[in-house]
Amino acid sequence: MNIISNVKLGELLNNLIAQYPEHSFKSIALKDMTDEAKKSMDILISHDRQVDEAFLSQCPNLKWIAWYAAGVNKLPLKTIKERNMILTNARGVHKVQISEYIFSYIMTDYKNVLEYYKLQQDKGFKTDIRHKELFEQTICFIGTGEIPSYAARIAQAFNMKVIGINTTGQDIAYFDEVYAIDERLHAFEQSDIIVNVLPETESTIDLLKQEDFQAMGSDALFINVGRGTVVKEDILIQALTDKVIRFACLDVFYNEPLEAEHPLYKLDNVIMTPHITGLSTHYNQRATNIFVDNMNMGIDNKRNFKNLVDLDKGY
Amino acid sequence: MNIISNVKLGELLNNLIAQYPEHSFKSIALKDMTDEAKKSMDILISHDRQVDEAFLSQCPNLKWIAWYAAGVNKLPLKTIKERNMILTNARGVHKVQISEYIFSYIMTDYKNVLEYYKLQQDKGFKTDIRHKELFEQTICFIGTGEIPSYAARIAQAFNMKVIGINTTGQDIAYFDEVYAIDERLHAFEQSDIIVNVLPETESTIDLLKQEDFQAMGSDALFINVGRGTVVKEDILIQALTDKVIRFACLDVFYNEPLEAEHPLYKLDNVIMTPHITGLSTHYNQRATNIFVDNMNMGIDNKRNFKNLVDLDKGY
Repeated sequence: MNIISNVKLGELLNNLIAQYPEHSFKSIALKDMTDEAKKSMDILISHDRQVDEAFLSQCPNLKWIAWYAAGVNKLPLKTIKERNMILTNARGVHKVQISEYIFSYIMTDYKNVLEYYKLQQDKGFKTDIRHKELFEQTICFIGTGEIPSYAARIAQAFNMKVIGINTTGQDIAYFDEVYAIDERLHAFEQSDIIVNVLPETESTIDLLKQEDFQAMGSDALFINVGRGTVVKEDILIQALTDKVIRFACLDVFYNEPLEAEHPLYKLDNVIMTPHITGLSTHYNQRATNIFVDNMNMGIDNKRNFKNLVDLDKGY
Repeated sequence: MNIISNVKLGELLNNLIAQYPEHSFKSIALKDMTDEAKKSMDILISHDRQVDEAFLSQCPNLKWIAWYAAGVNKLPLKTIKERNMILTNARGVHKVQISEYIFSYIMTDYKNVLEYYKLQQDKGFKTDIRHKELFEQTICFIGTGEIPSYAARIAQAFNMKVIGINTTGQDIAYFDEVYAIDERLHAFEQSDIIVNVLPETESTIDLLKQEDFQAMGSDALFINVGRGTVVKEDILIQALTDKVIRFACLDVFYNEPLEAEHPLYKLDNVIMTPHITGLSTHYNQRATNIFVDNMNMGIDNKRNFKNLVDLDKGY
């Protein structure tokens, strides 16, 4: 089979070539692919935003897209389903780095990292900055999948109370309590830190409303490492401006990249990073481990593939 | 008994008064204590640096110093021993907040918190900053007492390998490996993060030498939340200037407060805080819990006191 990777896999590609001498592996950026390469391609490894309907129409033999990212919401899922193609994603590859970043945000806020950085710049040695403790705080994850489950275990080691929110409210390991999404205000009311980890699907777009932030309350820290579309930006900005919640740490935004003129830059109670919490130096290795497991399973056995995307649900 | 607190205990003092109506509790700053108060005092709650030999000579009835800090190295231990006084400290009261700060430092460094803060100030949205992961890193604690034990459990939740260093190398829960202090170079060589948590005693002053930092290596992060005297500052500054180690996070210094002209301020690979990792809004509550347990034990039963300081060892 002809396998083309738009992802620069470096040494990992050489490993694949050595491991599967019966197949052809090539590393080509999507924009550099010839018509011939597109025509003969059986498997595509990619996380290129240009994988769209037009592109797929030029790839008549394509059987499997190994998507090296978690979110598949921008892909032409309908076409992929109609053509009976396999779509796998990099779900779970993010749990370590995103979980670690959640605690990095919490520490930055709770431990006054930026205030102490400024104090160091000023060569000051005062000690009246009071930090908060994670100890016995309540953290609520919107979502109870692999990322929040990994983060929940860490939160418990910090002696935090851990609440999860999922569709039905069913119990999940490492969560002290789980609420159904429709009951989320009860969870928010008792939480100090609320972390959105939901993917973008039809049912998560614009999910959070004004009353959600009111329930979180004026001492709440809101962290979004899921998707920016979970809340309309005017609602979020209003909640921060009016101190309906205390602070926010945002890695994802309604429209990315964030424009330099964006009103979020004017707020003093928000920390922002440019959609980086999922990045990791181990990322490609972890995604390739999944790819290899599926290669070994064989394309005729796709039912047993790891990280198979449900093309109706969109995750 | 007459009990005087130099520590402002607020509501906690009212609780003590209500709990022990047979005793007298007063809150007086050390500098405001009358000769009469000093003479009649049986128990002192304090962490005032002026508790010295001269002060104690004015307190002939003093039987117990409930020291609301961990380090007792500045107290006149010889006199306290000669007068057969009880000294308890606030050991263990720090484990939560100092452990949390250790991870705050690690996150600040590993997750590029300050770089992203500057990026936000510049309204930039680039994504080529690569962060490190705690996952599968090796962390080495110099000391295996209550603080590192609490921190070790958290480190394991992050899937880190945890090494401890103590006097004899005896195994301790939550540590994957423990080395004796004389074997510490072997531990440093395999560690990514080295955290000093040792108190100041005769055997810890100037403990770390040039070869210790060479063993840690050029990618190492060194964190000091113990005492600044564990390493001579010229050795530490040289190690940072010459990149013998990569980065340091320091909360304690040889001489505090750090002077504004101090050469540490000139380095770009050090984060400093003004001896604050032990502070906590829960601090006085936790220290008072120990005090109450000991009050209930009774002064004639001092052998069973919690947090009794060994006046020979100095901790």
